[in-house]
Amino acid sequence: SKKRIAIIPGDGIGKEVVAIGVQLLETLREVRGYAIELVPFDLGADRFLRDGATFPADDQRTIRETCDAVLLGAIGDPRVPSLDYARDILFGLRFGLDLYCNVRPIQCLDDRLMPIKGKGAKDCDMVVFRENTEGVYVGVGGNFKKGTPDEVAITEDVNTRKGVERVIRAAFEFAVKHGRKRVLMSDKNNAMPHAHGLWKRVFEEVRGEYAGIESRHMYVDALCMQMVRAPETLDVIVTNNLFGDIVTDLGAALQGGLGMAASANIHPGRIGMFEPVHGSAPDIAGKDMANPLATVLTIGMMCTHLGFEGEEARLVEIVREAVRTGRCTRDVGGEMGTRAVGDWVLAQVRGS
Amino acid sequence: SKKRIAIIPGDGIGKEVVAIGVQLLETLREVRGYAIELVPFDLGADRFLRDGATFPADDQRTIRETCDAVLLGAIGDPRVPSLDYARDILFGLRFGLDLYCNVRPIQCLDDRLMPIKGKGAKDCDMVVFRENTEGVYVGVGGNFKKGTPDEVAITEDVNTRKGVERVIRAAFEFAVKHGRKRVLMSDKNNAMPHAHGLWKRVFEEVRGEYAGIESRHMYVDALCMQMVRAPETLDVIVTNNLFGDIVTDLGAALQGGLGMAASANIHPGRIGMFEPVHGSAPDIAGKDMANPLATVLTIGMMCTHLGFEGEEARLVEIVREAVRTGRCTRDVGGEMGTRAVGDWVLAQVRGS
Ligand SMILES: CC(C)[C@H](C(=O)O)[C@@H](O)C(=O)O
Ligand SMILES: CC(C)[C@H](C(=O)O)[C@@H](O)C(=O)O
Repeated sequence: SKKRIAIIPGDGIGKEVVAIGVQLLETLREVRGYAIELVPFDLGADRFLRDGATFPADDQRTIRETCDAVLLGAIGDPRVPSLDYARDILFGLRFGLDLYCNVRPIQCLDDRLMPIKGKGAKDCDMVVFRENTEGVYVGVGGNFKKGTPDEVAITEDVNTRKGVERVIRAAFEFAVKHGRKRVLMSDKNNAMPHAHGLWKRVFEEVRGEYAGIESRHMYVDALCMQMVRAPETLDVIVTNNLFGDIVTDLGAALQGGLGMAASANIHPGRIGMFEPVHGSAPDIAGKDMANPLATVLTIGMMCTHLGFEGEEARLVEIVREAVRTGRCTRDVGGEMGTRAVGDWVLAQVRGS
Repeated sequence: SKKRIAIIPGDGIGKEVVAIGVQLLETLREVRGYAIELVPFDLGADRFLRDGATFPADDQRTIRETCDAVLLGAIGDPRVPSLDYARDILFGLRFGLDLYCNVRPIQCLDDRLMPIKGKGAKDCDMVVFRENTEGVYVGVGGNFKKGTPDEVAITEDVNTRKGVERVIRAAFEFAVKHGRKRVLMSDKNNAMPHAHGLWKRVFEEVRGEYAGIESRHMYVDALCMQMVRAPETLDVIVTNNLFGDIVTDLGAALQGGLGMAASANIHPGRIGMFEPVHGSAPDIAGKDMANPLATVLTIGMMCTHLGFEGEEARLVEIVREAVRTGRCTRDVGGEMGTRAVGDWVLAQVRGS
């Protein structure tokens, strides 16, 4: 039966890169014969400004019950100052579909994209497993005496045994499956014994089951330093929602910027939501300047999730070639526009 | 009257670098005539293993009531697996003395220490104001059904209007006093509206009072990326306790590593605790390998706090010269030992 892919362009450059993404999926269907069906959803600032809807229950159910994957562009628009609508959609997908692994490869595809002296592309090939359904993102907290000189503002970092264990296991399983040798867990248990003590205990337990994988722990502050000083020592990284957010943006700096950073939000064996890590970038929206390569890489991850073996590796090679030969946007050293880069990628897919 | 400086060597390389620090303070007293008195405290793993004491109330009171500054080496020893004793001392000082500004300069002193391609020492000159008495560090939280499959582990990120406002103001005041043009506040209010909504509101209010300073906001994930991609765009940064911890370790990577990172934990106008950012580094302890330059820079910050004008700038220049001419340890490209570097610094102080 056909795989159904929900398409949510969203806002700003999200629309431009998803347009390329849709063409890419259609081309893959045609060229490779993948049985896929694209199902567009009208969500984002335009919709919100038109009828006040953020992520209607109907759409949520359709996606949850009938789709195998979601392609999301980006959410965020200067016309909507409140961040609630963006949270409704983004967290509605991440939490609502229980997508507990936010998998973000930090792979540098060309020496010229590597900003660290003495390092090359080969020195940066990590994969971050960011817990994606808990932590400070759950929205638990409050403001006591809000707006007064006595205000106390609290956000709770909520972690469950189940949530911590499943993402740590997923990281180890990924390492086993992809022949990766090392898994590193990062937290800050020296400052946060309650929340991160759980991470530490669960990690100690689970690592014992994976004798073939070298496992270790690093505080998040040390990890950020290590990513700059010795990225070649890092491999699979598993961490909480907030630290995953931080280290993957830092990681983007090692890949050539957010224009090269892909992500897969998955519930293994079930549905997945795929989004380039970049935001809606209102400053460059509508100017044909957005880098579509993160979306190409993201669709590669989607193909793996949908069971289209080998496609992800082929798309990675096409993106690598795009950067190597300057078929890319300015942010990664080229001179081409979004659509022209997209066209070149499509031609490669047809030719490969 | 004499300024009293509490000396806490602590553990591991803390002892080695504080030994240099003490010699430096004694030399400054002799050469410049500073009226200072050094008051040693026996705190750390040796003491804990001997009599179980971490930070006795007596010592806390003596420091609080009779000292003007504290020099701390580092706390942490593999013979004491529990982190509680380290927290007792470190957080006992930071919280007990209400040292709400953890001031951490991220200044690169030599081109060869700068790890980013196309950037030099001149491109990295930030100062981080890390809130130092609140946030996730307060230890509020708990573990429900601890050790069971249903465990829920929570740490609360606690922020008060008073705490947020005073550190933001201190950052602006610092900018004004030192002729710095820009203050950036970093948080993650898009994911943590309760705790960081307060930061956002207070920052909006306070920035209005400093018309001469360019102020802006950046999410912490974007900030970490920016520190690698364009450190030259950053100046004074103010942020919460946890993010300050993370960005200053990342910043250390831009300075040549933790061996070059100084910090001042201060309650402006009152007492200050000064510590190199590095830890006790058990792996290199006792080997005369520790870089004492972070401690030299840290004592520079102490001198400013104690009112010894001009000393900090002189010590910065000595450290810069040490690195430039290879009078330094291996971590920053030299071949000298801790004591030899210390001796060279002392000779410069005598000669300058
Ligand atoms: C937009 C924001 C809430 C989001 C996050 O923090 O998860 C983004 O930074 C990301 O990394 O996907
Ligand atoms: C040792 C640790 C608790 C400490 C902190 O997180 O504050 C350290 O990383 C620092 O930056 O001083």
